[in-house]
Amino acid sequence: MSISPERDGPGPEPGRAAPRIAGVVHRTPVLTSRSLDREFGCELVFKAEHLQRTGSFKFRGASHAVALLDDDCPGVATHSSGNHGAALAAAAATRGLACHVVMPDNAVASKVRAVEAYGGIVHRCAPNQAAREAGLAELLGQGFEAVPPYDDDRIIAGQGTCALELLEQRPDIDVIVAPIGGGGLLAGTTLAARASGVEVVGAEPAGADDAARSLAAGERVTDHHPETVADGLRALVGERNLEVLLRHDVAVLTVEEARIREAMEWAWSRLKQVIEPSGAVALACIAAHRDRFAGRRVGVILSGGNLDVAALLDGDGMPS
Amino acid sequence: MSISPERDGPGPEPGRAAPRIAGVVHRTPVLTSRSLDREFGCELVFKAEHLQRTGSFKFRGASHAVALLDDDCPGVATHSSGNHGAALAAAAATRGLACHVVMPDNAVASKVRAVEAYGGIVHRCAPNQAAREAGLAELLGQGFEAVPPYDDDRIIAGQGTCALELLEQRPDIDVIVAPIGGGGLLAGTTLAARASGVEVVGAEPAGADDAARSLAAGERVTDHHPETVADGLRALVGERNLEVLLRHDVAVLTVEEARIREAMEWAWSRLKQVIEPSGAVALACIAAHRDRFAGRRVGVILSGGNLDVAALLDGDGMPS
Repeated sequence: MSISPERDGPGPEPGRAAPRIAGVVHRTPVLTSRSLDREFGCELVFKAEHLQRTGSFKFRGASHAVALLDDDCPGVATHSSGNHGAALAAAAATRGLACHVVMPDNAVASKVRAVEAYGGIVHRCAPNQAAREAGLAELLGQGFEAVPPYDDDRIIAGQGTCALELLEQRPDIDVIVAPIGGGGLLAGTTLAARASGVEVVGAEPAGADDAARSLAAGERVTDHHPETVADGLRALVGERNLEVLLRHDVAVLTVEEARIREAMEWAWSRLKQVIEPSGAVALACIAAHRDRFAGRRVGVILSGGNLDVAALLDGDGMPS
Repeated sequence: MSISPERDGPGPEPGRAAPRIAGVVHRTPVLTSRSLDREFGCELVFKAEHLQRTGSFKFRGASHAVALLDDDCPGVATHSSGNHGAALAAAAATRGLACHVVMPDNAVASKVRAVEAYGGIVHRCAPNQAAREAGLAELLGQGFEAVPPYDDDRIIAGQGTCALELLEQRPDIDVIVAPIGGGGLLAGTTLAARASGVEVVGAEPAGADDAARSLAAGERVTDHHPETVADGLRALVGERNLEVLLRHDVAVLTVEEARIREAMEWAWSRLKQVIEPSGAVALACIAAHRDRFAGRRVGVILSGGNLDVAALLDGDGMPS
């Protein structure tokens, strides 16, 4: 996917993105839980991005990219198997623009329906990277503008508005933990927090640990065979994203699958919030590295809540 | 279970209960969803009682009963297979009082753990009404004070504070829909709303429709064999509770099981809130009787969010 520079500056800047998307994105609430604070031995401040429009933080970056489009833009295009496609469709609709999303044949049915529900036009393709890029190239050839999911300054700046808001809502926090897949959210969070001196930590599934390995190597590793329930974090970290993390010396900690499952259980049972696996990874990271966070005020980004709810409810977990 | 009169008045009065429990109970937020409004053709205002302490509205009534106890009370006792036991244990703990809960051997394990986690002392008994009452009688013989789950003026008044808050938060609503099992919440809601002229509607599973049948008959029916996934609404309506509903001519509408399942799916996927089956019955009622609510501003009480989350997440509904 092509890389689009932000149009009016030298690099992504969440502080410039925020006023451009005010009134379009939700200012999501922060949530707290005394019982979880006792459980984890620190003070947790949850940023509820699963309550963002389209159910994830992705709507921030997508809205920012769309806000920067020229008035005569004929529409936008991307490829996506998940939340970015829905977010871009919804953002494009706010400006009355067409949104084309190339989606693999094996995409989760509920996520395909979500893109269509927000007005997106879905183009199915074979489930491989080459087919996705070929599908997108055809759309770009028709004049639509590409809006990549994370390796893009407009997107990074937009995602960073989440941490900016959190720091306004709770200026007393010591550290922010955010999940990392492609790195749009973590890079944006890093840039948003740098002026305040608040530490930023990335949380990555051990089964998709390319960002942790890339940071250790000082360059992007490309041997990547993700195996994790956190479907939103299976992407390879982007070039621009990794560059931001290296420049600001951000630590990325890994978490095992069992911890992710456990963190979902904490979030659902104590916070009563529907959090998808990727959205629970930051909390899982705190559970897995308790000493590092003990006694601190910790901002935790609950990044999304899009799940196949029907499939869950059809299981054996209902009262009988 | 014995019926305890409220100590300082002729009947339950939510307006008197509210200041007694202020600062102990959470003032729960209201939630809205543009997409659900479009879906149902009315303006929905959700009162988020699943975010109440202990995960249900039951903490309001329990806290009110506990607030009215004498200082030399040796402790409280009840029988419960669900949310009332946990709520009473947590409420008793706020005054440093012991709380004994008789629970049947077949109670859901996560609900037994919840009672214990809030400091309650669990007494197991055979899973029938006689054994529950015998277990409770033994505890009352030891001097503990009974706090019944719904057929009690202190409890009815406490549950009514939920609707009082909702009417303060959104004085523009036209009608409030609340679920009915034993009737503590619906009777309290009726008394809270009577001064404002706001209509109150009860929502009852068709598989546990004793309240609807009792209202039609003008007296309590006792042939009751509840079959519903809404485990919190299987109780027979209480005497005091039914009396309030008859006196104020409250309508109770029934909903089929499939609608309850569907409403849970709406709440989980659109609101991203973990709602238990009983907590989804009010929304199910609106879906089942759309014409009655079309174009109106409807307060919907999401009464609780306690589910066996571990069992749900162990099903087949997770991303793969």
